[in-house]
Formats: sequence, C-alpha cells, structure tokens
Amino acid sequence: MNGRNLIGNEYAEVNTSAFQAINPLTGVTLEGDFFPAQRNDVDEALNYAVKAFTVYKNIDKDSKAAFLRAIANEILALGDALIERACAESGLPVGRITGERGRTVGQLNMFADLVAEGSWVDAIIDSALPDRQPAARPDIRRMLVAMGPVVVFGASNFPLAFSVAGGDTASALASGCPVVVKAHAAHPGTSAMVASAIQKAVLSTGMPEGVFSMLFDNGYSIGEELVKHPKTKSVTFTGSFKGGMALSKIAAERPVPIPVFAEMGSINPVLLLPEALDVRAEQIAEQYAGSITMGAGQFCTNPGLLLGINSAALTRFKQTLVEKIAEISSATMLTPGICKNFQDLSAGMLQEKEVTLLVKSEKQVEGANNQALATVAEVSAKDFLANPKLKEEIFGPWSLLVVADDVAELEEVLEYAGGQLTLSVMAEGAELKNYKSLLDKAEDITGRILLNGVPTGVEVCAAMQHGGPFPATNDSRFTSVGTTAIRRFVRPLSWQNWSPELLPSALQDGNPLNIWRLVDNEMTK
Amino acid sequence: MNGRNLIGNEYAEVNTSAFQAINPLTGVTLEGDFFPAQRNDVDEALNYAVKAFTVYKNIDKDSKAAFLRAIANEILALGDALIERACAESGLPVGRITGERGRTVGQLNMFADLVAEGSWVDAIIDSALPDRQPAARPDIRRMLVAMGPVVVFGASNFPLAFSVAGGDTASALASGCPVVVKAHAAHPGTSAMVASAIQKAVLSTGMPEGVFSMLFDNGYSIGEELVKHPKTKSVTFTGSFKGGMALSKIAAERPVPIPVFAEMGSINPVLLLPEALDVRAEQIAEQYAGSITMGAGQFCTNPGLLLGINSAALTRFKQTLVEKIAEISSATMLTPGICKNFQDLSAGMLQEKEVTLLVKSEKQVEGANNQALATVAEVSAKDFLANPKLKEEIFGPWSLLVVADDVAELEEVLEYAGGQLTLSVMAEGAELKNYKSLLDKAEDITGRILLNGVPTGVEVCAAMQHGGPFPATNDSRFTSVGTTAIRRFVRPLSWQNWSPELLPSALQDGNPLNIWRLVDNEMTK
Repeated sequence: MNGRNLIGNEYAEVNTSAFQAINPLTGVTLEGDFFPAQRNDVDEALNYAVKAFTVYKNIDKDSKAAFLRAIANEILALGDALIERACAESGLPVGRITGERGRTVGQLNMFADLVAEGSWVDAIIDSALPDRQPAARPDIRRMLVAMGPVVVFGASNFPLAFSVAGGDTASALASGCPVVVKAHAAHPGTSAMVASAIQKAVLSTGMPEGVFSMLFDNGYSIGEELVKHPKTKSVTFTGSFKGGMALSKIAAERPVPIPVFAEMGSINPVLLLPEALDVRAEQIAEQYAGSITMGAGQFCTNPGLLLGINSAALTRFKQTLVEKIAEISSATMLTPGICKNFQDLSAGMLQEKEVTLLVKSEKQVEGANNQALATVAEVSAKDFLANPKLKEEIFGPWSLLVVADDVAELEEVLEYAGGQLTLSVMAEGAELKNYKSLLDKAEDITGRILLNGVPTGVEVCAAMQHGGPFPATNDSRFTSVGTTAIRRFVRPLSWQNWSPELLPSALQDGNPLNIWRLVDNEMTK
Repeated sequence: MNGRNLIGNEYAEVNTSAFQAINPLTGVTLEGDFFPAQRNDVDEALNYAVKAFTVYKNIDKDSKAAFLRAIANEILALGDALIERACAESGLPVGRITGERGRTVGQLNMFADLVAEGSWVDAIIDSALPDRQPAARPDIRRMLVAMGPVVVFGASNFPLAFSVAGGDTASALASGCPVVVKAHAAHPGTSAMVASAIQKAVLSTGMPEGVFSMLFDNGYSIGEELVKHPKTKSVTFTGSFKGGMALSKIAAERPVPIPVFAEMGSINPVLLLPEALDVRAEQIAEQYAGSITMGAGQFCTNPGLLLGINSAALTRFKQTLVEKIAEISSATMLTPGICKNFQDLSAGMLQEKEVTLLVKSEKQVEGANNQALATVAEVSAKDFLANPKLKEEIFGPWSLLVVADDVAELEEVLEYAGGQLTLSVMAEGAELKNYKSLLDKAEDITGRILLNGVPTGVEVCAAMQHGGPFPATNDSRFTSVGTTAIRRFVRPLSWQNWSPELLPSALQDGNPLNIWRLVDNEMTK
C-alpha cells in the first residue's frame, strides 16, 4: 500500500510526518503510513489537472466510457483486500461494504452508459432563418461543456461509494472534468487502494496524466488550499453543516468564486398519518427501528424526526418502537470523533427541557470501541417549536418523536424544521387526500418525498434527487446521487454561425452521435 | 399614470416623498409622481407572493400560458403611449423601443409556448423493479418544481425587454414563481404602465393576487430589503459588477442563502484573424463601427475589446474603423450617471500609460444632453497584459484595440481577459483550423462564441446562452435570455412510491400531458 500523494501518474516525494489509520472497533493501529500533502502538492495536482483538461474535455465519448468502466473493473480486481481494509478502517460490516462496492462499481458503469449514450449534453439547435424580417436569424447551437478541475472531498460514511471513486468522482469524470480528491483521513488505506485502481485505469485506457490526483491530509489546511486554488473550478463535499458552510464561504470569497456542492445533513422527517398508525402501528415501528439504526445511523437520510398526532395508535407505535430499539445491539461508529459527537449530542438533547427518553438500547457489545447505542426520545410539538436546538441533526442511531395535537401543528413543525433531503409519509391510500395542505408543505421543504417506505437506501438512478433546500444542502438545484449529478460540473456554451466542421460532434448536422437533440423546438434523434 | 407601489392587485397608500423621471435627452422633468416603497411594502408584497405561490405553482399549464399571453396583449394594448414614454425616459429612439417591445411580447409568448408544450419540467421516471435482487427498486419519479418568490431588478438599458415584464419576469412567471419587481428608477413611468398591463392580465385570467407586485425606489434600500427578505427565494439582476456582487454578498449572508443571478458586464473580445483582415478589413471595420455604437454602446454584449496581430491588414482595419467611427453622431445615454461614468472612464482609460486614442467622434448633437461620443483607443498586447485596469468594462460606445505580435500573445490576452458573455471570431473558413488552441481558450472563457458576426443583437431562442464565466456573470451555469432561462427558478423534486392520483400530471402513468419524458432511461412521448 502506497501512502504517498498520487499526483498525475506518480507518487510525490514526501517530507511530512506520516499518520496511520485506526480500526474504530478494536482501536488497533492499522498497517500503512500516509503522508499529508503540502501546498506545493496542491499546486502540482491542479497544474496537472488543467493540463489534462485541455485533452480530456474533448475526448470522444466511448473512450471516456471505457475509462469509467476500467475504473470499475480495477476496483473489483482489488478483491477481498479492499473489502477487508474498508471494514477495518470504517467499522462497517462485510455485507455492507460489499454492497457498497457494488454500488460504487454500479455508479461508475451507470455514468459510462450515460456518457456512451450521449444525450446528457442537452444539445439544442436553432437553425438559421436567413429570410426572417426585420433581421435574419443566425444558426445557434448549444450544449453543456465541462468547466474544469473538480475537487472532491471523500466522505467518511461511504468509504467507497462517496469517497475516492464514489458518485462525485464518477460524475465529474463523466462530465469531462479532471478530479483532485482530498482523501478522508478516516480511511486512508481504502483511499490509497482505490486511487491505485484509478491510476491503473488511467494508464490502461490512455487517459491524460493529471485527470486524477489524490492528496492526503489529516487536518484541514490542504482541503482549504484545494478550494482556494485558482485552477479549481468546483468542489463537492458531503459532511457536516459546519464543514459545508466553511468551504462555501472560502469558495465565495475567492477572487473568482466557484460553486461548492455541499450536502450538509438533514433530519429527514417522517409523517405518521393516523389511519396508517391505526392499521399498522407495529409494522411501521419495526420498519423504522431498522431504518434508524441501519449503518449505526450514519446516513444522510437517517430518519431523525418522527412526527405524529397524539392517539392510542401512536402509543402502540411508541411501544413497539421501544421494544424493537431495545433489541438492537450497539454498533461501531466510523471514528472516535463521530462517536463522541453522537454521545455528547444525544446526551445534550436528553437534557433539554421537556425532552424525555423513550428508549436507549442497553445491548452494549463487549470489548468493542466507539459503540453507539440506539436512542429514541419524545417531545411535544409545542416544545419542539420553542427550541431550535431540537431540530439539529444528531449523526447516528437517534430519532426524536414529536407529538402534535392536530394536523395544523404537524404543518407548523414541518415548516419550522426547514430544508431536508427526504421526507417520508406513512399513510393509507385513502387518507392522503385529506392532507393536501400538509403534503404541499412537505413537498416545499424536501428534495425527495416518499410514501410508505424508509428514506435510507438511496436508489442510484436517473429520477433520484439527493439534495434538498437549505440547510440540507447549499444548493437544492443539484443532486449528488443519480445520473443528473453530472450537471454539477458543466455549463452551457452556444456556438453562433459556427464553422460546421469545428462544431462538437454532438451539434453537427446529421446528428453523427445519434443523440436526442432539441432542433427548432422539436425533440428529435 | 399611477406612481404608487403595486402590491398584489392594489396600489399601496403612500407617505414618502415622490420622485420624478427626467428625459435624458432634453433634461426636462416628465409627468408623473413616483413613490419609493417602504419596508412594510416589501413585507406585504412578499406575504402576498407566498400566498399566491401556494395556488400559482399548481396552476395548470394552459392557464399559465394564457396568463403570459394576456400580459403580452395588454402591453401591446398600451399602444404608442408606452413607446413614447419609454423613449422619453431612456433617450432611446422610437425604432429601437418599438423593436424592444416586439422582443418583450415575443419573449412572453415564447415562454407561453414553452409552458403549454410542457416538456421543460424534465420529467424522469424510473419504474419499480419489485423482483430486483438483493432488494426491490421502488418507483421513483422526478420533475422540476418552482422554488417560490423571485425578486426581479429592472435593468436600465432595456426598459421593456429586461425590466418589469422582461425576460426575467417572463421566465419566472413561466416557471410557476410569483414575481416582485424592483422598478428601475430611470424609467418609472414605463414601469408603471407595464405593471398596470400585468395587473390587468392577472385579473382577466384569474391569477392569484400577489403573483405580481412592483415596488419603486430611487435609492438602494428597498432593493436590499427585497434580497434580505426571508420569503424571497431567488433574485435576478442585470447591471454593474459592483451592484451584482453587492447583491450576491447580501444573499449569501442570509440565514438561508438564496441564489442571485447577476449579469454583471463583459468586454466581449473580438478576435480579428489575419486572413479575414487580408480579405475584408474594411468590411469588418464597418460592421464593428456599427456594433460598438449601436444603442449608444449600452449593451451587455458591446464589443469592448478588439484583438488582432500587427499587420498591414490590421492597419487598413484601423483606418476604416477610424473613418467610420468619426462619422457617427453623438447619442443620448440612458441617465446622467451612466453618461458621466462613460466620460470619466473613457477619459481615464486614455490617460493610462501606453493607451493611445485612435478616434473620438466630434459629431456632437447640438442642444442635446447626456451625449456620448464614440471612441476607440489602441494598446499593445504587452501593455494590456501589464495593466488590469485596461480590462475593465466601459459601458457605452467604447472599444479598445489590442495589438499582439503573434498568436501566442493573443492567447495570453484571452486568458487574461477572463470570463465573458460573448467572444467573436472574424475569420476565413480555411484559417480556423490553424488556431485550434486559441479557439479552445476562447471557448473556455465565454458563454457564446460566434463567427463572422457581431455580438450585439442577442437572439431569444432555445439555443441561446446569455451568461458566461465570472466576472461576466456570477453563475455561468444559467442564462438570462432564451427558454432555458426558466431553469433558474426551479429545483428537482423526486416522488418515491408515491400515490398515483396525487402525482403531478407531468409524472402520471399514461403521460396525460403528452410531454417528452425519460422513462427507464428511454426518451419517450
């Protein structure tokens, strides 16, 4: 395992002190020395990226697709060693990491398919109208073009699917932008292995050197330097509100501001409608006990806010939820810092006025470090509305049940809760029509609304919106999951009266790429 | 003419001191008292807008299209009185204002067509896969939804097409968002007339009260309050770099940040390639003398930077340009402030080291106020590259000819010039292939690139990109002209496993709206 910084196709010389990875479950220091990058490494990675960009942005779509598929194959070729290392560094179980590898590889292949098909460039052609009065109309053609180097911050909670070769990297490379990854310090070995897989794919498919680089840092300075660097054109980040806002601020204050796509957290409200509780309170409780505790609750879409109207059925829901949560063993959190935060914040929340503990699992796994015990608390809607602290996210297996007196209070709570990634509605089909105004409010505050399901387990597909109104993200117009994630790294460019042979092939007469295009306001292929 | 603030369907009571419009050509104060809004007017307009939004966002597409068409018709119904007032307030000639009215009405009808056709909502459906292993896939459907009240700042240089019912208002209303206009203080009478036309259309088509409001102010405070207001969801602005950046900063520092779409200015480089100059230096010079001085140079796309390589042909170009510019009479600028700025900045530029005057027209129109005399200066590429002041925009009939020694210098100048709305290339077909790297650089810095034309005269169509890399705009991913301008005011929302009868009709089975949709990765209608 090479723990040096990968810049272009080479590993940079190092003169910083190494750091190591620690197994959060055992506390054991793992094999491998990793070397924080320095400022000149940032410069070099971005200089390479800009140089690569001049070639990579114009590479034909089939070669780009082949590159993405090669990355997927090289990741698979890392075999069990990757699974073992990712489990050791994250504390996540083998099944989960294996599934996550499948998702990672699936995402890369999905973007390869998207790129190979080609219509994502949103080609629009308005033909010349030489005889138009009072003035002729020139020929105008427009498509999306790559903006340049993207800095990707690896996320801790998806050491494969939202890290070095995760959805951000896959969509950025698919768009035609080079990528510089800031590896997450919690899983440097996993990062190094995946980076080596990408490096192999770059070489085997003949991609320009610098289309991918990866830098380590166990502090904040390299990340900041990457965002400040004049050659960086955009940034992706999945993490805390504080982290996302700090990066957004740095990006906005640059001489030339750039977009940061920050996914910053969400409490993902769940509306428990009365008839659904009447019919199946116990079943819903069981379903949600699973969703709240899945992956030690370390998901952006974890249901942290359960909302219901006071009733006998809600009491049944509570009883089952308490029973089910009590059965769930403690789980290893990703890092000691995340674990400490979870413990501090959940303990703090329980000390807030009027918040009462419903259940905290006592099934502590013996001899395991960084364990989180699933916890659910309760508060009245009135008290929730009076205390802004109660709507803060607690990252981990935590949920707060907010009990309202009536629908009007539910609506108030939703409006007050603010922007969310997801909002779930548990309802019987027939009752939905009685809650028009409530559902309208629900749609206003979320990026995804779902019926009779759990928000965890985000599908990777074209119709997915994983992003939502502030503060869930800093820009609800974009998604970090699904094919449309590619739109974050491109901008439209129009060619007017341009030389036919110099036009990008997507815009040429005769549609040589056989893609969907809007030609004179008609969609055609 | 009612100079009070239009809030919802009523004119607000006033208790501020009136201001008046002044004819920039004659200096005469025009009829009509206009009353700056106050803070409570901002509150009221946005409260109305939010209330209207709950109805308007769900209004059927044909009704929305009818509303936009009714606005267009009511503007035409204002007849010559509108043309006369707009001319008097702007100093622009009747032909130009009549043409601009045509564009304004055309834009409204274009967005009506777009909305009535319906495919702009970008509907994407991924069907359920109940048998998928290891887990079933739920049904997921996604489309673009309106974000809420848009604050539109009227622009001074297009008193109709980028003001009260201009492209920003038309695209925002088309998207399903209510609009609150901050009327530009330079043409309050024109604004009041157009607002009354919109008011009539709101009433005649039964749109919810508050879908449109308009506030006056002859200072900055009401604009700032509008951007700060918690119910404002986005802002459009066309004007100075300073103004755009100030609004962006206010919006970014809100507790809940919102997007500002600021089009801030551009010097729109023109590359004069050698063969084209050899063949038709005089013709190009004549064409550009017209473009530089059109509308007193008061266009975002005015060609402020002419770039060529030193040659005998370039000398011929200069000679003709000097002759043609000298023939052009002075023109009235929009406001005394703009005129003073033009005179100060062009005089200042001529005092910069190494900048030499090529021509300043001496054809001053007698007895006319606020006149601008067309001016062209020259500087070497080396001196241009050494002085950042030389790349600042001078709003008005001004252009700077930068003379390079070779292609490498041209390329350097382009990179240094930074983000632009447009970039024009004057070339013979055969020579283009010799400038691959230069054209590549050109594409990187602009939103629109054009061959053998002038950048002024922006087509309003689907393929238009009117927006470009910073500092031309603050967000190159969007356009303020053309149908895709609608995308500024919407965000994607996904419905997962949603109740079929509660889905928006755009996403329902059977495609009841008969729109283009991406269903299971196939484009279909």
